[in-house]
Amino acid sequence: MATARTLNFNAGPATLPLPALERAQRELLDFAGSGMSVMEHSHRGKEYEAVHREAGALLRELLAIPATHEVLFLQGGATQHFAQIPMNFIDKGRTADYVVTGVWGEKAVSEGKPMAALMGGALRVALSTAEGPEGGERTYRRAPAPSEVKAAEGAAYLHFTTNETIHGVQYDGYPDGGAVPLIADMSSDILSRPVDVSRFSLIYAGAQKNIGPSGVVLVIVDKALLERSRKDIPKIFQYRVHAENESLYNTPPTFGIYLVRNVLDWVKQAGGVAEMERRNAEKARLIYGAIDAHGDFYRCPVQAENRSKMNVVFRLPSEALEEQFVGEAKKRSMVGIKGHRSVGGIRVSTYNAVSVEWVATLVDFMNEFAKRAR
Amino acid sequence: MATARTLNFNAGPATLPLPALERAQRELLDFAGSGMSVMEHSHRGKEYEAVHREAGALLRELLAIPATHEVLFLQGGATQHFAQIPMNFIDKGRTADYVVTGVWGEKAVSEGKPMAALMGGALRVALSTAEGPEGGERTYRRAPAPSEVKAAEGAAYLHFTTNETIHGVQYDGYPDGGAVPLIADMSSDILSRPVDVSRFSLIYAGAQKNIGPSGVVLVIVDKALLERSRKDIPKIFQYRVHAENESLYNTPPTFGIYLVRNVLDWVKQAGGVAEMERRNAEKARLIYGAIDAHGDFYRCPVQAENRSKMNVVFRLPSEALEEQFVGEAKKRSMVGIKGHRSVGGIRVSTYNAVSVEWVATLVDFMNEFAKRAR
Repeated sequence: MATARTLNFNAGPATLPLPALERAQRELLDFAGSGMSVMEHSHRGKEYEAVHREAGALLRELLAIPATHEVLFLQGGATQHFAQIPMNFIDKGRTADYVVTGVWGEKAVSEGKPMAALMGGALRVALSTAEGPEGGERTYRRAPAPSEVKAAEGAAYLHFTTNETIHGVQYDGYPDGGAVPLIADMSSDILSRPVDVSRFSLIYAGAQKNIGPSGVVLVIVDKALLERSRKDIPKIFQYRVHAENESLYNTPPTFGIYLVRNVLDWVKQAGGVAEMERRNAEKARLIYGAIDAHGDFYRCPVQAENRSKMNVVFRLPSEALEEQFVGEAKKRSMVGIKGHRSVGGIRVSTYNAVSVEWVATLVDFMNEFAKRAR
Repeated sequence: MATARTLNFNAGPATLPLPALERAQRELLDFAGSGMSVMEHSHRGKEYEAVHREAGALLRELLAIPATHEVLFLQGGATQHFAQIPMNFIDKGRTADYVVTGVWGEKAVSEGKPMAALMGGALRVALSTAEGPEGGERTYRRAPAPSEVKAAEGAAYLHFTTNETIHGVQYDGYPDGGAVPLIADMSSDILSRPVDVSRFSLIYAGAQKNIGPSGVVLVIVDKALLERSRKDIPKIFQYRVHAENESLYNTPPTFGIYLVRNVLDWVKQAGGVAEMERRNAEKARLIYGAIDAHGDFYRCPVQAENRSKMNVVFRLPSEALEEQFVGEAKKRSMVGIKGHRSVGGIRVSTYNAVSVEWVATLVDFMNEFAKRAR
């Protein structure tokens, strides 16, 4: 009955590891012999609680998260946290600094700004790598080198986006905030490579790329930052309150967290984050290799050291050829490679669950197409 | 391989219709012949979009929602919307009125108050049916009659909770706000009986009782209210923006909404909301009948006309007997009937997906237990 699995290069929601899905399918009607689905269990019952704790423990283990930091499973997508972060951490009269390297950084600013104002503070763009006129479509082709980024003295925090999915720009070495707390949106590259969590006051990530389905947001936050966070906002928006309640202050998205658990367990079984990094490097080598081997046909606009290992963007000589490329790929069961509507071109997302084999198949097609269609 | 299905009377997350789960299981790895799970599809692709639209259309049909009202699928649980509603609808210098008939009304007030203050407005309890000292455990045994409730002239809105899950108190006839917009938290009784949506400016409901899994919140909102809502808050918190973007402003919880679609389709196939009301009345008749038939053993503290048809709360002569009752029920494969830890006793939740047969089985046990343990 099973159709062959489609080679899914979607930018998010994205492909998930097959074993994580098969486990969910197997257990869907009867979780742990309980005669009910995990999503029918109370979030305060021991069956779900075990899943909830395991998800947190797996993440701690995989990212070597120090005891100084809390792990939270929340909702609202990264977009909500663009607003919730300033709500929690910008005090009256204070300013937070943002580094913008693509559309998601722009969105963090545009959602955060009105919230900062409501909180009696402000938010400023400390550095942007945008090219092109303000207000128009802007291009981003690089992330700053660590030495380029200076947070203002006394800034509430310094925010940046480790990987930009639309422009395919990824940091190669993170800024140093000095005394200013670092906050990073890692939605699209968390768990793709090891990270020194202790350098960050807060890391957050929507689940729908490397962690699980949409509807879950992961927050890793330093207790020291929580202690300084605002108490005059509703409890439901306070990261501190969620930490005190182990992400059970209100009903969490239990089935989403269950799926996150399944994915994290798959990462562990596969060899952990180091092995993910190795596979991601291999996939990037294959695709960027094909792009560079046909440099007169494929063109990646991103500066070499910031070429994303999660979202590979490139152009063909014409939009007509790009359309043909997408169409022919689809006939070969490869989907999700059309560039974001705001920038066009091709985008191949190569998150953890995208296998080296899938990428090799795509690269074979790229090579063949370049020779034939040129 | 299948274990027999447990009789699940959980208060939420709660039991879901078996056909909705079976459909999810069947399609989990391969949605609509696409070779991928629905949760792996882009939220902007045609496969998911069809599900998203069908969920909205089914809800519109089942509740006869007029064209004046938008249907939104959001996140954060009802608790987040306790804060988000004042953020959107309390203008500077304005006050919103709340009617409190249980713990969820209290929470709506406690989450809403700091937000109202941040927005330069206020929130007041217009009426509470609490019994007992402020600050202590409070008992609620009734909802006000419509004529008891008067919203202050010029109030931003009048908010109430149609069913209180912990105290088992449900409205029998809704207040009339006059010129003041009515806002109702219907988390625990939406779709359990027909409702005249046109009377409400906003209805909201966490999905995890009658609609689907946790992690999805349904909002039904009058366009006229949206036009008057605040624009100085982040877009991600603006109901207006979600309406303009058909709940696709940011990535929605796609798999959760897919499950909601499955549940709504089940409601429709079963005969719609009128049939749900008939079944719920029958279940209530059976349980309250058993309570009243053994009035010297079981005792429901709720005033007759406000006895909830969704959460039946009652006491036994002693806590020891209550414990024995819960334990023996569990041996008979009936779970989720322990009262909320804040009030004790027994609570049987009889949401739409709880069958009349399950309730009849429980009632047989109640009758037998009362005779034996007395």
